[in-house]
Amino acid sequence: MLKISFIAIGNELLKGFIVNTNAARAGQILRNQGLSLHRVLTIGDTKEAIMAAVEAELAESDVVLMSGGLGPTKDDITKYTLAEVFGAKEWKWDQDTLDFLEQRYKERGRSLNELTRGQARVPDVCEVVPNRMGTAPGMLFRRGNKQLYSMPGVPFEMLHLLEHEVIPRLQRSFSTEALTFEFVRIAGIPESEAAGRLEQLEQDLPPEASLAYLPRADGIWLELSMRMPHEQIELATRQTHEIAARIADIFGPAVYARDDRPFSQVVRDTFVQKGLSLAVAESMTGGRVASLLVESSGASRYFKGGVTAYFTQIKSRVLDVSENLIEANGVDSEAVAREMAAQVRKKLNADIGLATTGLAEADGDKGAHVWLGYADHMGTEARHVPLRYNRSINIDRATHYLLQLAMQKLHERL
Amino acid sequence: MLKISFIAIGNELLKGFIVNTNAARAGQILRNQGLSLHRVLTIGDTKEAIMAAVEAELAESDVVLMSGGLGPTKDDITKYTLAEVFGAKEWKWDQDTLDFLEQRYKERGRSLNELTRGQARVPDVCEVVPNRMGTAPGMLFRRGNKQLYSMPGVPFEMLHLLEHEVIPRLQRSFSTEALTFEFVRIAGIPESEAAGRLEQLEQDLPPEASLAYLPRADGIWLELSMRMPHEQIELATRQTHEIAARIADIFGPAVYARDDRPFSQVVRDTFVQKGLSLAVAESMTGGRVASLLVESSGASRYFKGGVTAYFTQIKSRVLDVSENLIEANGVDSEAVAREMAAQVRKKLNADIGLATTGLAEADGDKGAHVWLGYADHMGTEARHVPLRYNRSINIDRATHYLLQLAMQKLHERL
Repeated sequence: MLKISFIAIGNELLKGFIVNTNAARAGQILRNQGLSLHRVLTIGDTKEAIMAAVEAELAESDVVLMSGGLGPTKDDITKYTLAEVFGAKEWKWDQDTLDFLEQRYKERGRSLNELTRGQARVPDVCEVVPNRMGTAPGMLFRRGNKQLYSMPGVPFEMLHLLEHEVIPRLQRSFSTEALTFEFVRIAGIPESEAAGRLEQLEQDLPPEASLAYLPRADGIWLELSMRMPHEQIELATRQTHEIAARIADIFGPAVYARDDRPFSQVVRDTFVQKGLSLAVAESMTGGRVASLLVESSGASRYFKGGVTAYFTQIKSRVLDVSENLIEANGVDSEAVAREMAAQVRKKLNADIGLATTGLAEADGDKGAHVWLGYADHMGTEARHVPLRYNRSINIDRATHYLLQLAMQKLHERL
Repeated sequence: MLKISFIAIGNELLKGFIVNTNAARAGQILRNQGLSLHRVLTIGDTKEAIMAAVEAELAESDVVLMSGGLGPTKDDITKYTLAEVFGAKEWKWDQDTLDFLEQRYKERGRSLNELTRGQARVPDVCEVVPNRMGTAPGMLFRRGNKQLYSMPGVPFEMLHLLEHEVIPRLQRSFSTEALTFEFVRIAGIPESEAAGRLEQLEQDLPPEASLAYLPRADGIWLELSMRMPHEQIELATRQTHEIAARIADIFGPAVYARDDRPFSQVVRDTFVQKGLSLAVAESMTGGRVASLLVESSGASRYFKGGVTAYFTQIKSRVLDVSENLIEANGVDSEAVAREMAAQVRKKLNADIGLATTGLAEADGDKGAHVWLGYADHMGTEARHVPLRYNRSINIDRATHYLLQLAMQKLHERL
């Protein structure tokens, strides 16, 4: 298999001011094309560090991808360092980049300054890889059969260049394999139990297939993948599909999605498909449920809104949860969770009402936990979930459990 | 300066299923102790990859930190590989770890299984670095003056071990420098303007000092740091403080914090200090403001709650914004932003009301933008902000602009 190294350049990455998401996104994009990263290296922007890293990764891998250090200012030394590593004799103007930059600046009614014009100047030993999303062109350097691609560090420029320019060149230069995969996403089943149910199926898997358990905030993503030569892609696609279908059968109603849509889209699509609207009353989750729902475009097709009742008095004041009920049961109770869901449903004139009340962190001898409330035209329900992590993870878990409960009710209903 | 490499082990990291936040957090923690990362390397969990990485980083750096691959199952091969690299002759039981594991399982009413007990078995060539947050102990291996620390991959275990066990050992073994730093956080001033105002000050900085501009969601963090020998730490602290105070003077009212508290804490502390309560009506931000506020413990000391009015009808139904006002001005208008803020303040009986209405993404020829509403006992105000990024960044920006507006009003007020 093709060995690919990724070198990310930037002091900010080493200091921890920025998390290296470029490498993670590159890993995903490569994987979708049947390629995978062998090593990821992060280094500071000094000449010595870049030279040492380039030599080491060229020795270790077939392909080296680099991001960062291509800006026009004097801190950006990647281009000059690579010119030295690959023994450039002179510098040339890349006419295509120059035309693109002039056009771009003209459209914006500005004239091209010398610093930016200099982005079109490249060492004679490289091939330019056009970048239409920014000012710094990508560059391809070769040593023997090995290839090194230098790309800008700006995430959307790097990802666009990787997907549209670099990967097609890799596929033309090297014989790559095809990777097919399908997802089966399950909720409410612990990983160890899932593994037990899949034991026989895993033993019977063909050698080209592999099954990964990916625990996520919204449940476990089971990823079945197969790696085969490009000629056999149809067979691989069919087999992947058949095995994934068997996995889905094993888990039945615990399966809540069969693709990699973000969770907010899965929820949106479920509600929109059923033609139902939603309202949410949040105490313990403090707005996190609503903010998760609106992460996806089109939330307004089903999500009417919500009430964040953080002070107890708001539960009675805005939601009309009766003070007697709160006094009799405590604010953090099954009865209040049910009533909050019922009241927010009524107040906001929605088909489904959801609610949370509980403790995001332990308070004295009371552990962190949440009461989840659900209401529809048939009545109300509640579920209690103990939580064992820190404040922010507990809020996030409660949010996902609540929405999983809602989807499960929607599926049962029709 | 001490050269430190960090090796993160895990196929999941290379595939992009998980972003390498361990390295970023380690970078921050080291920096707070005057240390810094020289290189970060991510590799898969194969013996060859681990061996090659360990040899290369031991050659390059003084200290190698490793995370991952210490679990009890057969996929976890770090311990066995390190035993081979460092020439272990036999395995020993670490009594301290064994006692800890037995105690821990007893407390939970469970008995220790063989797989977990095996975590206390370590190669004879290592020194155990106790891990009280999980089952896998840390291990220190030496080669000449160089040190390699193997730590678990679970973030909170790794970070605890690094901070409380590894860094103190490094400080005892190597002569490290002292790093002092202070933050001046400013909002509402573009980076280029900030740089202009600081030009003279930057020219006059002593050579031991450096000033970093860190653009964050909540504004620009200006970080002034000084690096000096440990004997001069008092001088460094005093000088850092003096220069930071001059920077703060230059920006006056644009300074909203002088330390690195999370933004939600800065907001909480500002409200609590003024003894004022807050309520929020969210349309465009859909719950994000509320969920940001409750990220910090103690939000209930000032945050009463909010209404997420995602459907237009909720604005009149729950918030009592008059339908005539909406019809006359449009739902996405200055008048509605002011009225939402006023109504949520009244409804929830809070001192301050805040509101957002607008477009999180462009819709036809209407660009993304937000109207921010503010209300207190004196009346209402609104501010309009055009937004130019994608949906989720726009929502996040609007959230931070709104809370910066609120803090600015609070500071003006008293």
